Amino acid sequence: MGLTYRDAGVDIDAGERLVDRIGPLARATRTPHVLSGIGGFAGLCGLPDDIEDPVLVSGTDGVGTKLDIAVQLDRHDTVGIDLVAMCVNDIITTGARPLFFLDYFATGKLDVDRATAVVSGIAEGCKQAECALLGGETAELPGFYDGGRYDLAGFAVGVVSRSKILTGAAVADGDVILGVASSGLHSNGFSLARKALLEVGGLALDTPHDDGTLGSTLLEPTKIYARTVAAALAAAPQGVHALCHVTGGGIVGNLPRVLPEGCSAVLDGTWHEPSIFDRIRKVADVPESEMRRTFNLGIGLIVVVPPSAAASVQEAMASAGETVVAIGRVVPTVETTPRVRYLADE
Amino acid sequence: MGLTYRDAGVDIDAGERLVDRIGPLARATRTPHVLSGIGGFAGLCGLPDDIEDPVLVSGTDGVGTKLDIAVQLDRHDTVGIDLVAMCVNDIITTGARPLFFLDYFATGKLDVDRATAVVSGIAEGCKQAECALLGGETAELPGFYDGGRYDLAGFAVGVVSRSKILTGAAVADGDVILGVASSGLHSNGFSLARKALLEVGGLALDTPHDDGTLGSTLLEPTKIYARTVAAALAAAPQGVHALCHVTGGGIVGNLPRVLPEGCSAVLDGTWHEPSIFDRIRKVADVPESEMRRTFNLGIGLIVVVPPSAAASVQEAMASAGETVVAIGRVVPTVETTPRVRYLADE
Repeated sequence: MGLTYRDAGVDIDAGERLVDRIGPLARATRTPHVLSGIGGFAGLCGLPDDIEDPVLVSGTDGVGTKLDIAVQLDRHDTVGIDLVAMCVNDIITTGARPLFFLDYFATGKLDVDRATAVVSGIAEGCKQAECALLGGETAELPGFYDGGRYDLAGFAVGVVSRSKILTGAAVADGDVILGVASSGLHSNGFSLARKALLEVGGLALDTPHDDGTLGSTLLEPTKIYARTVAAALAAAPQGVHALCHVTGGGIVGNLPRVLPEGCSAVLDGTWHEPSIFDRIRKVADVPESEMRRTFNLGIGLIVVVPPSAAASVQEAMASAGETVVAIGRVVPTVETTPRVRYLADE
Repeated sequence: MGLTYRDAGVDIDAGERLVDRIGPLARATRTPHVLSGIGGFAGLCGLPDDIEDPVLVSGTDGVGTKLDIAVQLDRHDTVGIDLVAMCVNDIITTGARPLFFLDYFATGKLDVDRATAVVSGIAEGCKQAECALLGGETAELPGFYDGGRYDLAGFAVGVVSRSKILTGAAVADGDVILGVASSGLHSNGFSLARKALLEVGGLALDTPHDDGTLGSTLLEPTKIYARTVAAALAAAPQGVHALCHVTGGGIVGNLPRVLPEGCSAVLDGTWHEPSIFDRIRKVADVPESEMRRTFNLGIGLIVVVPPSAAASVQEAMASAGETVVAIGRVVPTVETTPRVRYLADE
């Protein structure tokens, strides 16, 4: 008997069983723009016909070491929501409407049930973002990942009319900074969170926290802001000056990306901070500057609006189910101070 | 002193140094369609204006355990070419023109020099495919990858006019099957190749092979067929009935994906097979059926054409620098025989 691909650790049949299981999940996310039944090697998607001079907007991201929590809890049906969220929340900051999504799933030894759970989360995320799961790749890489570990990468494409791209150029002195509540850590800073809580603090994932456990709190899926942003843009087409996804780097690392040079932000810091952040802060004595440049600290999305549009945008996003508060103001940049300042520091 | 993100194994400064290094590499791949200087969270790309009723075509893939060879040889500037090739060679089978590419690079401990080398290969691949490197994500995942290991995922988007999508529906009895030479293993079957050569065969990567070593032969970058396909489509706009990327699964696993139900293929099997395949076959006594469903065996792309267009398509691709040979014919499907048959078996 000679050597086979299966002997080398790659199970083609398991891959085919997985394809059978995830087909219906992907089909359930189809939009009218998807061309089905053709393109054996690739996914095909048309463009909405109500977008004049369309520009494609694309982003890629992963879930990071939040995956470790999923593996430890053996709960795999939510990290796919995180994956979609991390990519989609990036592309919608340009004003784009999500169109389709692709995923890459890599593991050492393919477990069909686990992979199906992961993809079911991705499909759920695509539904929340109203985009189609157009394709994906499952890679079985013997020896690359220990035990049940796996990695995920996502890729989102959206579309925006060229004349409606949000660049942040409209942001002006006096604009109101609205903060949209996050659901917790989202998918950033998990290496620090894990080190602080599980290593320095010596806490177990089944330690009670709020109404659940530390594990369930850490695994809470990232909010997907696609519908919220669509509602804001519909309520005030000219009244959204900039959108900022509070991703890796926190508010201090991300808000400057959408502020024009002469504009800075002063934050009042009085919004509700989910209790998980203070637990991390205290258990490992994490400096406040490190907390701010690592975590979203309760604000997952920032919307910069002129004062005249603040009420209507806030109301539109609240109607879409979000908790939205004014967290600060745009002020002129002062050379000697940071672009994002906290009132509490002054 | 409290805990910091760096203590947790994530080096934000290294990430920023990497961004500085790869910026110029990505900018060098820009096409006129890319909108630059805006979109801090995402990449923006317009559409070519010569494509009527555009349909987007998208695919994702990785490099697989070919990455292990790169790590063992400590040579990281070519696997990016493989990454682009695996994605782009998929999307062009629909007749699409590549538009842009994004990459995901994940490692346990970020090595800026190594990551820069990887991205330089990706940029080189994008140049060969004439698409823009529009974005990417670098993930530092402490504890996820042993030693210097890393994983790569790629995402390609192309565009094709709705009326020009290649579906394979035009394939007919008597069509000529043209095979375009591969450069070797491309990026498929490496788990089997490594097991056969390095474990069963006990060969070292510096073992002489052809004019080089086993290592250099295995690491030879995957051919990118974007220009070749563009040349074929330009030479015979109606004369290309189907395109097949010979990726994981070999010819037997991929050619049926573009053949309509009533059509099968008979291959004469007389094309040149690079010597690496026979070395794998013999060193581990790999059954021929396993060789065929794992490797490309010398043919990286298949073009199905009507006899009337065979000469012009073959000549156009040869002028683009490829070795192209007629490898078989389309015949009516016979229920009791495989969709892809080899004359040598009959």
